[in-house]
Amino acid sequence: MSSTPRLRSLNIDNINPHVKTAKYAVRGELAVRAEKYRQALTSDKPATPDSDNEGRSKLPFESVISANIGNPQQLDQKPITFFRQVTSLLENPLLLEKPQILIDHLGYHQDVIDRAQWLLSELNSVGAYSVSQGVPGVRDSVARFIEKRDGHPADPASIYLTAGASAGVNTLLHVICAGPQTGVLVPIPQYPLYTATLALLNARCVPYELDESKGWGTDLETIKASLKKGRDDGADVRAMVVINPGNPTGASLTSEEIESVIAFAADEKLVLLADEVYQTNIFEGTFTSFKKALRDLQQKDGERYKNVELASLHSVSKGMVGECGQRGGYMELIGFDPQVVEQIYKFVSIGLCPPVIGQCIVECMVNPPAEGSPSYPLYRKEYDTIFNGLRDRADALYKAFQDMEGVKCQKPTGSMYLFPTIELPEKATQAAKDEGKGVDEFYVSKMLDATGVCMVPGSGFGQKENTFHFRTTFLPPGTDWVDRLRKFHGEFVQEFR
Amino acid sequence: MSSTPRLRSLNIDNINPHVKTAKYAVRGELAVRAEKYRQALTSDKPATPDSDNEGRSKLPFESVISANIGNPQQLDQKPITFFRQVTSLLENPLLLEKPQILIDHLGYHQDVIDRAQWLLSELNSVGAYSVSQGVPGVRDSVARFIEKRDGHPADPASIYLTAGASAGVNTLLHVICAGPQTGVLVPIPQYPLYTATLALLNARCVPYELDESKGWGTDLETIKASLKKGRDDGADVRAMVVINPGNPTGASLTSEEIESVIAFAADEKLVLLADEVYQTNIFEGTFTSFKKALRDLQQKDGERYKNVELASLHSVSKGMVGECGQRGGYMELIGFDPQVVEQIYKFVSIGLCPPVIGQCIVECMVNPPAEGSPSYPLYRKEYDTIFNGLRDRADALYKAFQDMEGVKCQKPTGSMYLFPTIELPEKATQAAKDEGKGVDEFYVSKMLDATGVCMVPGSGFGQKENTFHFRTTFLPPGTDWVDRLRKFHGEFVQEFR
Repeated sequence: MSSTPRLRSLNIDNINPHVKTAKYAVRGELAVRAEKYRQALTSDKPATPDSDNEGRSKLPFESVISANIGNPQQLDQKPITFFRQVTSLLENPLLLEKPQILIDHLGYHQDVIDRAQWLLSELNSVGAYSVSQGVPGVRDSVARFIEKRDGHPADPASIYLTAGASAGVNTLLHVICAGPQTGVLVPIPQYPLYTATLALLNARCVPYELDESKGWGTDLETIKASLKKGRDDGADVRAMVVINPGNPTGASLTSEEIESVIAFAADEKLVLLADEVYQTNIFEGTFTSFKKALRDLQQKDGERYKNVELASLHSVSKGMVGECGQRGGYMELIGFDPQVVEQIYKFVSIGLCPPVIGQCIVECMVNPPAEGSPSYPLYRKEYDTIFNGLRDRADALYKAFQDMEGVKCQKPTGSMYLFPTIELPEKATQAAKDEGKGVDEFYVSKMLDATGVCMVPGSGFGQKENTFHFRTTFLPPGTDWVDRLRKFHGEFVQEFR
Repeated sequence: MSSTPRLRSLNIDNINPHVKTAKYAVRGELAVRAEKYRQALTSDKPATPDSDNEGRSKLPFESVISANIGNPQQLDQKPITFFRQVTSLLENPLLLEKPQILIDHLGYHQDVIDRAQWLLSELNSVGAYSVSQGVPGVRDSVARFIEKRDGHPADPASIYLTAGASAGVNTLLHVICAGPQTGVLVPIPQYPLYTATLALLNARCVPYELDESKGWGTDLETIKASLKKGRDDGADVRAMVVINPGNPTGASLTSEEIESVIAFAADEKLVLLADEVYQTNIFEGTFTSFKKALRDLQQKDGERYKNVELASLHSVSKGMVGECGQRGGYMELIGFDPQVVEQIYKFVSIGLCPPVIGQCIVECMVNPPAEGSPSYPLYRKEYDTIFNGLRDRADALYKAFQDMEGVKCQKPTGSMYLFPTIELPEKATQAAKDEGKGVDEFYVSKMLDATGVCMVPGSGFGQKENTFHFRTTFLPPGTDWVDRLRKFHGEFVQEFR
């Protein structure tokens, strides 16, 4: 009668070590704890917080605020009506048999019906796999959108529809990374998808620091030094990630910064991965795409910029669209070797196809109701309301941070995030150390337990040594949660002074 | 003035070699060629076939038949009305403000409205990311479905919603495969997702042959010998894939076969990956799930079957649902070490979440209208019509193959495929060799060029040495395409006799 349990095949010591190494703080331990709090608050049973809350029998807040992730529709952002009217017809094409009912009673316009009919003619059914690269008609629309945005031609054959930008990044890094020696330049701070995917692929992250003192801009000398260090360390550095507008920083690059990055990539033979998912989340200045800047440079100096490899990524999850859960996006591939493109195609075909309804949301995003069309006025109003709401909330949060002792924050210029620095009392640093945590982690964890507001510590994105930050979205509505933050911060500083 | 083009960073010789090694014939070169033919047939320009068609100015067929992939709604399978009515309301919740219009004019019933309202209360918006494991309420429904199916409890915490079964397989193999020494037993023939993913992960496929003479059943002695050979070759064999009902074989396993596989896995400490996506595509006998069989065995002999690790995969893409493009599915994890489960959770969180509307289709699949509910009669009728249609087409195709010289085919018992053997004249083998192709590849390629019918050669799935097969779905409607096959086959045999 042995009491030793039958051993399992898999244990923490024998599974894929690269999965263990990968870190993804945006949905890490804090997010899981926040989810538990949320469930406790909505369940009928009395709330019992985790034991690290010293057994208090009730949570000290009435709602959980998920400021850890750019998930607009989980908060109060409403979807754009036109998009959802179209997708409702795609999901139930039988509705198209009664257009007059839709128009007379349900708020649909003829342009919605026309769009849905055209999309159905392109894809047959949203329940059918599309070709792996994405529905041809949708790719045509994406190409026209890029042409209009950039003033340069775009080829639908170079567009790959994806299940959000994450899937595009996953594909590109899978093809780029050939082994442990492959290096990819990644900004610090960065969106942790990049370091996580590089860890999974057992490739090297070659970090380059953004310059907080210059509004989180790219400093070419820093990048050059990082590349040199990476190469000196034996890395075959072959690609560079740029996130513009920045995540988590919220910064947007000037066209001069972009051109200097492209020149650098051209001279150093680096594939450029331009993560441009926040391209419409711009509060100051205008967005310049890497594609436009590259084509401009190629017109000036064809020889130098010939064959620059650029992948530009976009998504339906951000901007005023905010359709994260629909998992839609695209990447445009410029200058890649056709044999490499074939391998990219094969790779995506193994996953069959991106969600077809997500592809249709991409189509609506790049081809919204045109001025003068019946759905335009409401579309315009919804778009502007969301845009202004985001800007107002960014400003309000920015102002709140300015009032907090030891907190410094760049003025919001783009994306959905603020990424303030915190300087905390020595006693807090010690208390954090005692718990085996960085002070940013300690602070954000205490914040969650005290206020129900979930943010991500700067360590989740990378930060300059001996600096500490946290990332918050400015998506949650209202000002109550900002007041909670103020109160918490005051008490925290008081406690550890 | 150098005319040497600036070199690119990436070329076919320096990219990830494992991407290059991966093969996925289901969407390979033939599928790409079929797509070209389809575009040529629908475009206004005169059709020009590939150059290997000797410059004929017109294609010798009027439609392309995609029998290469189980994609029911690309052919004529209609979606289940209840499912799509629910998802239309989820996409446009404003419709819920006019329930009477929906009911009086648009064919909706109250149970559709109730379902949509409940799902919205669970997930807020289909445009919001869900938790990475999937919407809790949907996982509850999946657990209840499994309990009802198996007569054993199921825990929603063990359910992971996925973007189709492919995403689940990708997750599991990523965690299981720790390096080039990891081996996974894979049936031959198999669905090539398994070998492709193992190739990407640089892990070893340890093939075990299914027994064509016994209706493509699993032969335990063969499996044992394969495992021994794998281990003798130095592989750390730690998992075993079973596809039931079979793809591409169409076979369904008896409960005795399943129990013997589980006993083998228990004794040899192998994780079982049970690909059960065709569980409702059963024409003969009944479906027994690996989960049920495992729980039954555990009741008989707890010690031997303790901690058996089983992952069971299901999908909305197949069955009578056929919602491939919606990318929905789930996996149930049984017996895994909690620390390993944590790593699985982290891995899926990097991809954020499965498409939310796909998760809702999963909910509808596992929780369809109940008998007595207003939507039940139509649901029942649609379900039965699809089921009977598939069976009739399987039979018709099976009969056609029986008439063809040199073609032998197992009687269809499940899934969506037939996988006949072909024996072709020596001259054909020689002609194939001259083109650097296997005879199955040669045959299927000629078939596409002559008939527009796209199938997959057996080599895409693996086949016993010196045997040749092809896989066809029996999804395409009508009998015209079957007549085209008969005619082609006769002419082919004639030409190469």
